Amino acid sequence: MLSSNPVEKAQIIELNEVRDIRGQLVFGQLNGALPFKVNRFFMVSEVPHDTVRGAHAHRKCHQLLVCVRGSLKALVDDGSEQLIYELDSKTQGLYMPPLTWGSQFEYSPDAILLVFASEVYEESDYINDYLEFQELKKSVLR
Amino acid sequence: MLSSNPVEKAQIIELNEVRDIRGQLVFGQLNGALPFKVNRFFMVSEVPHDTVRGAHAHRKCHQLLVCVRGSLKALVDDGSEQLIYELDSKTQGLYMPPLTWGSQFEYSPDAILLVFASEVYEESDYINDYLEFQELKKSVLR
Repeated sequence: MLSSNPVEKAQIIELNEVRDIRGQLVFGQLNGALPFKVNRFFMVSEVPHDTVRGAHAHRKCHQLLVCVRGSLKALVDDGSEQLIYELDSKTQGLYMPPLTWGSQFEYSPDAILLVFASEVYEESDYINDYLEFQELKKSVLR
Repeated sequence: MLSSNPVEKAQIIELNEVRDIRGQLVFGQLNGALPFKVNRFFMVSEVPHDTVRGAHAHRKCHQLLVCVRGSLKALVDDGSEQLIYELDSKTQGLYMPPLTWGSQFEYSPDAILLVFASEVYEESDYINDYLEFQELKKSVLR
């Protein structure tokens, strides 16, 4: 569950899980483990172990990253602090608010990363230059 | 892509796929392969092969079923016609409009089913009685 300010900080969100004789059910929904309405999703797989994906921030888009299978590492950077999370369970989501720099790497061969996004694809929402990201972050915090 | 009336009929939607040396990317978004805003998601896995899940319809909720790994069978029933789809690719989604009876079965041991839903969980949205579903469907078509 998120705190009262859901867009404050990148963080791991525990997803709900139910197990019974019919299998495992993992779920999330708005106002719970899903902190925004999803207008886009994507799935990344078959990523070579030495490949780094991401390496950008978003101006407006919120994202939730769920490693559905296998494992990978996810770096989040709010402009002043960098943290690396190991994502290896489909019962956890990594929430990334707007203006968070992120990259993903060390995918296991079987890894499947599912990403929920609050916005449809718009090229202008991407910040691909780290210095520009830092400047923008400073100006927002000023 | 959906036809001009996106809620008309259960159907397979081809998801977009991009492959390059960094791996495989599969995606969908609103007004494309994702026919509704997602307010809830769930993932089903570790389902015994002889287990049938689902066996209900929704009054208002739209769903998109994506088999992320492995395979399973999905029955859809609009009250007059029954179709069984084999879901075995994460580049395909099975769209189920409201008032579609559905059940899923013959999950492979490694199957992971991802479901996007337009509504948060509400018990009263579920129709668990097939005869009630048929009556309701008839009254809507009248």
